[in-house]
Amino acid sequence: MSARRHVNVLFSAPKATYEEFHPAICAALQAAGVPARVAGDLAPEEVDYIVFTPNDLISDFSVFPRARAALSIWAGVDKVLHNPTLTMPLARMVDPGQREGMVEFVTAHVLRHHIGMDRHILSSSGWDQVAPKLARHRKVTMLGLGELGGACAQALSALNFYVHGWSRRPRALEGITCHAGPDGLEAALAGAEIIICLLPTTPETENVLNAHTLSLPAAGAVVINPGRGALIDDAALIAALDSGALGHATLDTFRVEPLPEDHPFRAHPKVTVSPHVASLVRVDTSAAVIAENIRRGEAGEAFLHLVNRQAGY
Amino acid sequence: MSARRHVNVLFSAPKATYEEFHPAICAALQAAGVPARVAGDLAPEEVDYIVFTPNDLISDFSVFPRARAALSIWAGVDKVLHNPTLTMPLARMVDPGQREGMVEFVTAHVLRHHIGMDRHILSSSGWDQVAPKLARHRKVTMLGLGELGGACAQALSALNFYVHGWSRRPRALEGITCHAGPDGLEAALAGAEIIICLLPTTPETENVLNAHTLSLPAAGAVVINPGRGALIDDAALIAALDSGALGHATLDTFRVEPLPEDHPFRAHPKVTVSPHVASLVRVDTSAAVIAENIRRGEAGEAFLHLVNRQAGY
Ligand SMILES: NC(=O)c1ccc[n+]([C@@H]2O[C@H](COP(=O)([O-])OP(=O)(O)OC[C@H]3O[C@@H](n4cnc5c(N)ncnc54)[C@H](OP(=O)(O)O)[C@@H]3O)[C@@H](O)[C@H]2O)c1
Ligand SMILES: NC(=O)c1ccc[n+]([C@@H]2O[C@H](COP(=O)([O-])OP(=O)(O)OC[C@H]3O[C@@H](n4cnc5c(N)ncnc54)[C@H](OP(=O)(O)O)[C@@H]3O)[C@@H](O)[C@H]2O)c1
Repeated sequence: MSARRHVNVLFSAPKATYEEFHPAICAALQAAGVPARVAGDLAPEEVDYIVFTPNDLISDFSVFPRARAALSIWAGVDKVLHNPTLTMPLARMVDPGQREGMVEFVTAHVLRHHIGMDRHILSSSGWDQVAPKLARHRKVTMLGLGELGGACAQALSALNFYVHGWSRRPRALEGITCHAGPDGLEAALAGAEIIICLLPTTPETENVLNAHTLSLPAAGAVVINPGRGALIDDAALIAALDSGALGHATLDTFRVEPLPEDHPFRAHPKVTVSPHVASLVRVDTSAAVIAENIRRGEAGEAFLHLVNRQAGY
Repeated sequence: MSARRHVNVLFSAPKATYEEFHPAICAALQAAGVPARVAGDLAPEEVDYIVFTPNDLISDFSVFPRARAALSIWAGVDKVLHNPTLTMPLARMVDPGQREGMVEFVTAHVLRHHIGMDRHILSSSGWDQVAPKLARHRKVTMLGLGELGGACAQALSALNFYVHGWSRRPRALEGITCHAGPDGLEAALAGAEIIICLLPTTPETENVLNAHTLSLPAAGAVVINPGRGALIDDAALIAALDSGALGHATLDTFRVEPLPEDHPFRAHPKVTVSPHVASLVRVDTSAAVIAENIRRGEAGEAFLHLVNRQAGY
């Protein structure tokens, strides 16, 4: 039996992420039966795989002649997608642990707005017995029916909400009224009381919530955005909140992060700011996804979760 | 064919409830094929069924010689249970609409505490990226596994929480670790991070959460009480919140309602007061339950949802 060569994995991430994920990635590769060296300082010409956070630590991917794939440990790869030096296969993260966390964040905030709990959290005086309607009478619209949006839509449907969804290509999801493409957006939003954004940022989705589309939901509707800040026209959102067209916005993602302390969202009484924590990648489950993709690369199998550069996500 | 006699239904409820429910009960009786007269002012000796809110509007049930059953339109009948004049069958309300609403209230508040959303609702400054663990790693304990507690426990289990439950008699519920009786309480509470009370008030359950039992959950645990105020020793709860043994209490029911404005719960920073709105009886679905019980009475069938006076609920 010939000695099996080691795979060289460049792991490029901010220090804290590196320290958190490094042992898990090594352990997952071992569990997957892939002998590997995982380090942050490999010589570029020796690198077989790039595991990375798409946050500009690597600007020139052309210096890795042998690298077979760039494997993101973040779900969103919008920051690196248009880097012209990145010509090798690019896989984003689809992490079952992250999906669970996103379902928990989204159902939590939908139910929060559904039962109107803020008034009790913010004031403990009075005895005003307002009962919410039942979830089955509440239209909730999910913009994006991918890995995360699809799972959230189904969890909301299981909680009896009347769920509509919107995607680029037509989808069929049990219990969800599905709409697709630019022509489907108005029907998806019309009369919705809670709208959740789980779309990627692309030229087609940027500002998908704007002055026109924000006029379509039910009066006083709520927007929840754990997707990307650029999906929303900030000024149009604030105008809709101020006019009463919208009742509240719970935002987890922003055009600039951390959200500047002087941004109008910070002081707005109808905005909840959450610091991009809707769902973090989970170390153990995501390390297993990275290891599986490297195993596939070595076995000559297709990579999982490849980004479609033409579609832009 | 002989003319079928009308059933006389006394409907005793506060004015607003009367006006809300009267048309629905009449319609439900008609839909059930039961010719009936439903009124608030029948002569006592003519009354066949008493439909009522158990809030002391009727103090002497012995004046209804012909009445075959007392049918509550509230789920909780603790206020009338020990009235010695109430010797006829007593049915409480088990309303599918109310069950749905309770599942929505309980899952909403469990998820709220699970993801720690209060800090973002209460302050929109900062960028402190604290991510909650996943629900599957969070022990949640449901005290009471009846119509409401059982449904809530299963909804929480479907959301992946690690759910324990406690009841008087042993129960087997899929996905729930069940405990029963006085000896099962410690195991149910040990290490729990979120505790929900959906028990009736009986001599056995009064003060079930007290100085001792509140020392069993995980440090910083949260209590959610949509059951009954008397389940909790108020002073012990406040002491546990003040010591940090508990992190928060979300209370929907109280020993005195409306909760007095000077009650210590009102001003306590770790208490959320909700004005007994966890789940109201829904007019349409509960009227159907009342009509079905009267139909059963007329057909000589067993009544649904009879109270077990010996068990006290
Ligand atoms: N806040 C956080 O903590 C956090 C964490 C993870 C991810 N995210 C964000 O969540 C978003 C969704 O992630 P995901 O994994 O679910 O992505 P995904 O699997 O790629 O799904 C994207 C969805 O958006 C739809 N879509 C894309 N372009 C569209 C268009 N022009 N019109 C209509 N629909 C369009 C897609 O339609 P098709 O179904 O037709 O493809 C798909 O349903 C990403 O932006 C990601 O960055 C946020
Ligand atoms: N806040 C609101 O808006 C609202 C609305 C509706 C109802 N409620 C309250 O919710 C509570 C539960 O209602 P429900 O319809 O679910 O009642 P239920 O069907 O009678 O269930 C009661 C549960 O408590 C358990 N239990 C009773 N005594 C016990 C004891 N000594 N030790 C351990 N477990 C005990 C029962 O055990 P077994 O399974 O062995 O019988 C059962 O699992 C009631 O108190 C009701 O008043 C509140």
